Amino acid sequence: MAIRYPNGKKYVPTSANSTAKPSSMSFSNRGKTLEDELNDSNEYYNSRGIAVIHKKPVPIQIVNVRYPARSAAVITEAYFKTASTTDYNGIWQGKYVDFEAKETKNKTSFPLQNIHDHQVEHMSQIHAQGGIAFLIIRFSMLDRYFVLPFEKFIVKWTRMINGGRKSITLLEIEELSVELQPGYHPRLDYLRALPDIIEQLTVERTERQEP
Amino acid sequence: MAIRYPNGKKYVPTSANSTAKPSSMSFSNRGKTLEDELNDSNEYYNSRGIAVIHKKPVPIQIVNVRYPARSAAVITEAYFKTASTTDYNGIWQGKYVDFEAKETKNKTSFPLQNIHDHQVEHMSQIHAQGGIAFLIIRFSMLDRYFVLPFEKFIVKWTRMINGGRKSITLLEIEELSVELQPGYHPRLDYLRALPDIIEQLTVERTERQEP
Repeated sequence: MAIRYPNGKKYVPTSANSTAKPSSMSFSNRGKTLEDELNDSNEYYNSRGIAVIHKKPVPIQIVNVRYPARSAAVITEAYFKTASTTDYNGIWQGKYVDFEAKETKNKTSFPLQNIHDHQVEHMSQIHAQGGIAFLIIRFSMLDRYFVLPFEKFIVKWTRMINGGRKSITLLEIEELSVELQPGYHPRLDYLRALPDIIEQLTVERTERQEP
Repeated sequence: MAIRYPNGKKYVPTSANSTAKPSSMSFSNRGKTLEDELNDSNEYYNSRGIAVIHKKPVPIQIVNVRYPARSAAVITEAYFKTASTTDYNGIWQGKYVDFEAKETKNKTSFPLQNIHDHQVEHMSQIHAQGGIAFLIIRFSMLDRYFVLPFEKFIVKWTRMINGGRKSITLLEIEELSVELQPGYHPRLDYLRALPDIIEQLTVERTERQEP
């Protein structure tokens, strides 16, 4: 059972908020990272012709490459670069799909420091082009997964920009997201959340146009 | 003026067919590679809200990372991996767009060895999902650029699979592609080719459905 803080009242120390790195393990899902789970799911979708969605490679700045005789080229000096987009994109039922996946060990809120400015800008651009942009958030200690549409996320991001809290509470995420029940085939059927999200957004757009 | 061989009759030695690597230079476009030109064009599209299209990072297998005190992590051993998808994708006018960009120094044909099996499979999956898949081919010695739709490309690829020629002749490419005239802003306005391609494919699909 998650402890719920009053909205924006309680400071959550950032040391407890760090995103799980690929090397970290959770016993609740047998050591699989969210990335593993999504890769499995995408392979499932792909092999059945349901969608074509891939994780983008990690961006690297290559400085030095060695070419040993009769062997493959070896990169001997390189650095991690900050991603300029989200990690996942692809096509589902003719629609462009774009998302970022994040895990947190925090039990009560999702720290917004997990998301970079340029990723928000990227999702905003995707949204403007008519694509489906969202976050998949895993609370690893709770073993709970949420699909949070960009349109809901941006409201909380803007709150932070305007001086408000630097996280989204679990309670807010429960209200704004579609929760996923992890299964086996696929592990995380996140595409099932999209029709609900699309319908909801269509209703909201219509309401805005007809006040 | 390009020399045109009779279809499938003439063998073009593969040594002359190697794709230009990012380090190679062409004086015709002031040393810019096709990748540079496309990145510039994508930045133009992006900044004007015309489309959101990015090149994917080069896939790397990281073997060793060093963490010097007070400095950024250094990758000290890594290898290039074969890409499992095309290099570019994104969204334009609500549509999913996916393509591979290739240069050749060959003056008379485009060698199919430039394209990998899994890239063809990927484009085929994208096509099946209703996305727009194509190749951008640059004949660097001729300074000519073509947008070749996947639906046209696959016919020539299948010809090769069935024992036919291992390249697409320039003449064929002229017939099957939309040729691009390089400019300045953007350098390569490849999105302008897409309405023609979409219309042509719609006509062909309709004809197939109403024999």
